[in-house]
Parts: sequence; C-alpha cells; structure tokens
Amino acid sequence: ANRMVRAAQGRGIMEFGARRAQGYDGAIYGARAAYIGGCIGTSCTIAGQKFGIPVMGTMAHSWVQMFQTEEEAFRAYARAYPENCVLLVDTYNVLKSGIPNAIKVFKEELLPRGIRPAGVRIDSGDITYLSKEARKMLDDAGFRDCKIVASNSLDEFIIRDILIQGAQIDVFGIGERLITSRSEPVFGGVYKLAAVEENNEIIPKIKVSENVAKITNPDFKRVWRFYDRESGKAIADLLTTSHETIDESKPYELFDPEHTWKRKTVRNFHARKLLTKIFDKGTCVYESPKLKDIQRYCQEQVDTLWDEVKRFKNPHKYYVDLSKRLWNIKYELLKKYV
Amino acid sequence: ANRMVRAAQGRGIMEFGARRAQGYDGAIYGARAAYIGGCIGTSCTIAGQKFGIPVMGTMAHSWVQMFQTEEEAFRAYARAYPENCVLLVDTYNVLKSGIPNAIKVFKEELLPRGIRPAGVRIDSGDITYLSKEARKMLDDAGFRDCKIVASNSLDEFIIRDILIQGAQIDVFGIGERLITSRSEPVFGGVYKLAAVEENNEIIPKIKVSENVAKITNPDFKRVWRFYDRESGKAIADLLTTSHETIDESKPYELFDPEHTWKRKTVRNFHARKLLTKIFDKGTCVYESPKLKDIQRYCQEQVDTLWDEVKRFKNPHKYYVDLSKRLWNIKYELLKKYV
Repeated sequence: ANRMVRAAQGRGIMEFGARRAQGYDGAIYGARAAYIGGCIGTSCTIAGQKFGIPVMGTMAHSWVQMFQTEEEAFRAYARAYPENCVLLVDTYNVLKSGIPNAIKVFKEELLPRGIRPAGVRIDSGDITYLSKEARKMLDDAGFRDCKIVASNSLDEFIIRDILIQGAQIDVFGIGERLITSRSEPVFGGVYKLAAVEENNEIIPKIKVSENVAKITNPDFKRVWRFYDRESGKAIADLLTTSHETIDESKPYELFDPEHTWKRKTVRNFHARKLLTKIFDKGTCVYESPKLKDIQRYCQEQVDTLWDEVKRFKNPHKYYVDLSKRLWNIKYELLKKYV
Repeated sequence: ANRMVRAAQGRGIMEFGARRAQGYDGAIYGARAAYIGGCIGTSCTIAGQKFGIPVMGTMAHSWVQMFQTEEEAFRAYARAYPENCVLLVDTYNVLKSGIPNAIKVFKEELLPRGIRPAGVRIDSGDITYLSKEARKMLDDAGFRDCKIVASNSLDEFIIRDILIQGAQIDVFGIGERLITSRSEPVFGGVYKLAAVEENNEIIPKIKVSENVAKITNPDFKRVWRFYDRESGKAIADLLTTSHETIDESKPYELFDPEHTWKRKTVRNFHARKLLTKIFDKGTCVYESPKLKDIQRYCQEQVDTLWDEVKRFKNPHKYYVDLSKRLWNIKYELLKKYV
C-alpha cells in the first residue's frame, strides 16, 4: 500500500480490495494494513467499524444497471447521498452518457440544495484519456471542485505511468493488487529457534544451510536503527546480542555479515532500540497505539529512508548488519557444522 | 495446486503453506482447495480436522536445534513417531551429518523394532544434487524404500526443472507459492447484475466498457460443456439463455463472441449442463459432495482438457462461447450504448 501511496504523490488512495482478498480476515486485516501504509480509507465497512478506518466508496455498477436509465440511477443516488455524491460514470459510455448525466444530475439535484458534488468515478477504459476529457467537461460545467476517482486493476507502476501522462485523477481506488500484494504475495518472515536455556545457561543455536539466506542468526538479540544526526536519515539496522549497548559518543564500525570486507565507520549518529517487550512470561504487557498513530509512525519511518532505498525496481539494499560479538558467536557455530 | 501436481508427474505434493497464508481462513480453505487440486495431504492440522484431509509433515528445524546433537534429536523423534519417521536432514549439513545421522538412527532405533523408515526431508541447498547424493547413501545403507521429501520455495516450474535434471524426489512439500497462488494471486471473479424483474417481466441488463473483458453477458444464463464423444475431451463451454436447450443429434455451430468470424461446427458431441441449483428462494437446496469426490471430479475434468490448454506458459485458450440468441441480446444492448 505504501508503494502505491508514494506513487500517487499526495493524491489519496482508497483501499477497495475486499472482494478479492484471500478470505475475510485477509480483507479486514488487509484494509488495516493498507491504512497503516497511508491509504485514506477503505471500502471494507467491517474494517471501518472494527478499527475506525474512514469508510469510502461509490456505487456498484448494478445500481446503475437496476434503473431504466443511467440518469435515473444518478438522480436516485444524489437524493439518497447528497452530501457525498460520487457517481460511477462508466457503466455505459463515460464521455457520451456518464459525464453528461452526472453534470445534469449535479445541477438539478445538488445545486438547488446548495450542495457541491463530491466526484465521479471511472472504472474502465483508458483512464488517462477519459480523465482528461472528463476534467474538461466538469470544469466547463462549473464543477472544478468535483474530484475524479479512478479504479481498474491499478498498482504503483500504472499510477506512476498515467500521472506522467497527465491523467487528471484526484483519488485512486485500489483493489486486487493491493489486497493480495500481487507483486509480492508471500511475506517471508518465520520463527526460528535462536537459543535454548539449559541449567540456567543460555546456549545460542543456529540453523545452517547452503542457502545463505536460510542461515539463522543465533542467540537472543537486540535490534538497533542507526540514524544520521545531520540528515535524520536511517543508515542501517544493527543486530547485537541482547546485552550489548551502543555508545553514541564514539565512532561505530558497521560491517556486512555476508561480505565482511565491506565496512563503514559511522559518526554523529543516533542509535535507537527497535524492540519493545510485548509478552512477559506469557502475559501481554504492551498496549497497541491508536491506528492513526501507527499510520503516522509508518509515514515517519518511511521518510527516514533514502529515495534510493524506496525505488520500486532495483532499490538500493538497506543494510542489516551484525555486531562483532554476534558475528563471532555465529562464526563459531558455523565452523562447527560446515 | 493442480499445476504443481501435474508438474510432479505422479509424485505426491503435500500442502505446507499455513504459516505463509494471508490469514487463517486463507490457510484452512487454501489447504482444502489444494487437496481438491490433487495434493495428497496438508500440514494444516485444523484443515485436516475440519475436512478430513490427510495430515502430514515432518519436524521443524527447532526440534533439531533444541537437542545437543542432531543424532539425539533424530533418535528422540524416531522413538516418538516410529511408524511415520521422516527426518529433516538439512539443519546443519545434509550430506556430512543429516543423512549419516538419519541412517544411523534408522538402523538403531527402527530396524530392531521391525519398522522401516518413512523418509528424509531436504529443505535447503541444491535439491537436485543433494537428493541424488542422499539417494545413493540411503540405497547403499539398504534403505531403498526410504522416501526423499523436498521443500524450499518450490513451484511448478522448479519441480519440472529439477525432475528434468534427475532429482531423486518422491514427495514435494509446497508452501508459500501454493497457498498464496504466487503466480496469480488475484482470482478475478465478481458478481454483476444480469437482469432485472419488472412487472413480472425479466429485462436483460448489460455493463458496457471500452475494456472488452469488462463487458458483461446479459440475461439469465445456462452454462454447457461440450465433449467430443470420440476422445472424451472438452471442446468448449457455451453460454446460452436460461431456457435454451441443445439438440445433440444435430451439428452445432459455435462462434467466438469476440471474433465472430471464428466459427466451428461440432458434431458427435455430448453437451452437459454445468450449473446446479444451490439456493432456491434463499434456501440452500444443495448438498456438497464429499471432499474426496470433489477431488476426483476435479481430476476427471482436468483429464478432459487437451494438453495444449494445460500448458503452464502460453496455453492454448479454452473457448467459452455464446449462443446466437444470447449474442443477439448482447449485441442489441451494446448497440444501444456504444
């Protein structure tokens, strides 16, 4: 979701994916995740009810199809939802009937009551062309404030492309490719055993593999994020053993655990501990922040990343390094088995 | 799942994806779908309990890591599960410790009790090379009947490739790429309004679009599958209006609704109605067959498809055509709006 939010460059993204999610909890928690990632709202009403996410959407095509004419359908909708009147203009023909009917209904149903129209939604066809033409027609009719919403199998790449082409979109509705994370549907995190307690002693454990990515980091760990004090940007994350601390007053040498000759000495940095205790002896000791605060935290953290790291294709790798002490423990265990 | 089952050419596929599913109902119903698609079982115990799917799996790496030595871990497992002893041999080093330890434990823990080992599982490294070497070592030790299970981000393409290279695998465990349908995570089916009843009259409705794929087929419909009587293969599916019937004794002209000049007259065919009534006035009137029977039906239907249609990449398109009557209704509605 955050990639799409960034591609939209300030325009809103609505999460529209419920019907294509992999199960209902995929839909509900997917909507929550999308909101954390920066979406402005969701069409999933139960996620709105459960988490307080703003619920938004327009009508279904079936609403338009149900009536004898498109104009009649728009008129009924404008009467039912005057304050939030977004009309779906692509059931039959966007430029020949959808937009003209919308303008007519805006003028005859909303203006007399002193209400401005909220928007129109285009869900098929060439979004770039249709949105430009629709924008002209709406502007000419005096509806410069009427927003244009676009949907139709969009993702971050299509959003970027159509904005480069000058599409006149104010808000995007994104469904299937967001809710299933189509570009990367598998989230690769798993639990692995890191240490065992035996006779009051903590013994670090490792899982070895020919696939370097499948080798685990042994022992109980602490995760630090290093920020450059000048730019505020994140330099790297560092894994240490759980008892290590970082002295910010001295230079710290980071090194790449896969390519140990790659070293970098950082100065003038701030090192923040990322881990927070959630469970203590089986009891939850953590209170989850408000969803809005989680969303803001996500935004703030994304802002500490360099643009190179945020690039959609071939991004620069964000470093996650090991402390020397942790590396030594790992190295000793590796030597034992390989 | 069915693509992977076909790639394995008779070798078993176990569904291993629960921890990577998009939510718990994704895991549970994904396991069910995988079984219907031809998997032999699942590691998702709750799906096993709920639907009667055979539950299978081995140990976790943490089991091996927990013990002082790999041999000790294998020994404890063999004592706990003697009848279904599949040992995970890649925690440290497959060929130097995993397989030798497995052979030792098979000999010392199982053979004295008159039990044959079930298998070993390799979950990382070069599966082709490791499985060939492991096969030799197991055969030399007298365990020709010990199966080799492979897992590690597999999909239909990797299965096909490593089998071409002669990998000695008897069973595949497939997780993330099956449970999220990584190659095609969005299932594109949606409900659209097809007709409206007004004053006891059924009025067909259409949704038009510049995107041809987004134009709906109006009216209440019936779906037929045409089979060639000689080969038993499926020729095409046909949508008709709900009251049409097909006279099998006469030739039937199929035509492509997108490219209407493409026509084909079929003879000596059997036309089967695919739709079954599930709900009647809001009441469920259908009883779901046993899961095993659904699995067999799936297998039978896949067998009626030509190999060209089943190809993983660039498959031949399976035709879904419209009857002339349905096409005429659609064409009249299209003319009205375009």
